[in-house]
Amino acid sequence: MEHKLALIGCGTVGQGLLQILHDKKDFLRDAFGFEARVVAICDKIKGTLLVPEGIDIPDVLAVLGAGKGLADTPKAAAGQAEPLDPLDMIERTDADIIAEMTYTDIKTGEPATSYIKKALRMGKHVVTSNKGPAALHYREIEDLARKNGLQFRIEGTVMSGTPVFHLAQSGLAGNAIREVKGILNGTTNFILTKMETEGMDYGPALALAQKLGYAEADPTADVEGFDALAKVVILSNVLLGGSLKTTDVPCKGISSITKADVEAAKAQGLRYKLIGHARAESGVVTATVSPHKLPVSDPLAGVMGAQNALTFDTDLLGKVTIQGAGAGKLETGFAILSDILAVHRCR
Amino acid sequence: MEHKLALIGCGTVGQGLLQILHDKKDFLRDAFGFEARVVAICDKIKGTLLVPEGIDIPDVLAVLGAGKGLADTPKAAAGQAEPLDPLDMIERTDADIIAEMTYTDIKTGEPATSYIKKALRMGKHVVTSNKGPAALHYREIEDLARKNGLQFRIEGTVMSGTPVFHLAQSGLAGNAIREVKGILNGTTNFILTKMETEGMDYGPALALAQKLGYAEADPTADVEGFDALAKVVILSNVLLGGSLKTTDVPCKGISSITKADVEAAKAQGLRYKLIGHARAESGVVTATVSPHKLPVSDPLAGVMGAQNALTFDTDLLGKVTIQGAGAGKLETGFAILSDILAVHRCR
Repeated sequence: MEHKLALIGCGTVGQGLLQILHDKKDFLRDAFGFEARVVAICDKIKGTLLVPEGIDIPDVLAVLGAGKGLADTPKAAAGQAEPLDPLDMIERTDADIIAEMTYTDIKTGEPATSYIKKALRMGKHVVTSNKGPAALHYREIEDLARKNGLQFRIEGTVMSGTPVFHLAQSGLAGNAIREVKGILNGTTNFILTKMETEGMDYGPALALAQKLGYAEADPTADVEGFDALAKVVILSNVLLGGSLKTTDVPCKGISSITKADVEAAKAQGLRYKLIGHARAESGVVTATVSPHKLPVSDPLAGVMGAQNALTFDTDLLGKVTIQGAGAGKLETGFAILSDILAVHRCR
Repeated sequence: MEHKLALIGCGTVGQGLLQILHDKKDFLRDAFGFEARVVAICDKIKGTLLVPEGIDIPDVLAVLGAGKGLADTPKAAAGQAEPLDPLDMIERTDADIIAEMTYTDIKTGEPATSYIKKALRMGKHVVTSNKGPAALHYREIEDLARKNGLQFRIEGTVMSGTPVFHLAQSGLAGNAIREVKGILNGTTNFILTKMETEGMDYGPALALAQKLGYAEADPTADVEGFDALAKVVILSNVLLGGSLKTTDVPCKGISSITKADVEAAKAQGLRYKLIGHARAESGVVTATVSPHKLPVSDPLAGVMGAQNALTFDTDLLGKVTIQGAGAGKLETGFAILSDILAVHRCR
């Protein structure tokens, strides 16, 4: 079956998705009977393409790779690259799935939330890698999707392509999940790993993370725990049935941890990790983000470098931990694809 | 939707499944629209029950828990508990799903393979926790299932309920899996853990594993790697598209590893693990089972005690590792349930 896709946002993640759709075209058709025609792309900086017969992916990737805009695509015909607001694009495209991949605004969830709601009202499935709508408005959006017989899927919002929600919905389905606990931010885990294994102090370890591209110039969102906080709120509300707001969750980052702290912990056989934790007990969901000193026997203690991991505590299986990449162009592009494939399977 | 289930084998795993079906009845109906009526049970030792209107699960569990046979079930009416061969039961029941949970015969795969083929020919889905048919005849059985528009599912054969095949089929779908590498036997991992963390020699560590019920009186299948071997063959053939036989896989266990070996490795920052490994390269699948000295940074190195874990090496996500229990009554009972739920989802 052929799906018509429209992309809102075509930065790293969107281009990763396009790359995969192109490279894996034959494989996806043969293995899953899945075919995709990308009928629209809308990006704040790069412009718009609206091509009902399907864009030429290699052309678009070449143009974007050269730092140019979508209007420079050689095959764009008259009118196909006119500037268009995503809300108007949603109205004009006949796509059946919208992939929303704009940047996260964790304070408002906008403009992504408006795009997502409009798409669902127009009868389109939505998949997103944007933490804002999932952290701030999950329940409301999910209700809207269900009322319209559509799917709203968010695999990419927590551990990029390393499957968290797919795991909960298929392999773990039937279990009650009582608690989740994880390393949800690769940047801070990289810094803590360098502090422990190479005896670096916090400042130089952060500087190295920035140099290698793991941390932003302004590292606040990572090192103060706000990125992990958004993910913990999503996990709480999606997996544990909570209705937490970001302000409900006590949050402490790693910026005050010193080399001496790390070494003192190590001497006790413990290892510092920034842990996002959420727990459901008697119907009440609580969550925190804070540094923990884990015994090395904890499955999360062995997670080193920029990796992410999440432990589910379940009633039938006990503890199940999944570990993998938490970021990356292909990884997050794949998260979007995996959600699109889930729509395809359950159509 | 209500499914009619028939159980072949009602030992630990079958009783675990019955317990879960009973305890989670309301949850499964509310969360998944899933209802199950157990219409037949056939066990070599415990006898037969054939009750088209559905057995009374608490009654059956009470009788079996007291060490009695199915014929002693108070509500069994005349003729419902007559001795019956599983092949005849398959013919007489109107179950739509057969749960095959007899003991593994890794040399022949029988009699389970005959039961499974007959069930598929009679139009019934099959789920199993039995390693024999999956290790020896996977491709043939899978072809038979597909030709009949049915499912043959085997989640419980590798890491009990910790999802391996569900993970590959949902969260990782779209990736090419190039390699899998895992700790697939809890008994040997328990022994190696005791040798390293408590300085025990192999003999006393094995004796402790036997005392705690992790190892059998005859521990050969575990300690010589044959249990892991069967699992590696299953992984090779199901996930990597191989067609390996058990005799194709070099296999070395842990019985010759000494306390001195473990200590020498530890001094180098390495840790002994019995690793099952399978790899696809240029269309050729190869596999081994053998002890490896892993650097402690390997995600498998941190897996301690009777836990199992598997690392998938994929083209889009890189390495993804899942860790959890590898055995247990409720865990393996859940594996069967998770396969039944998959049949329910994809009906």
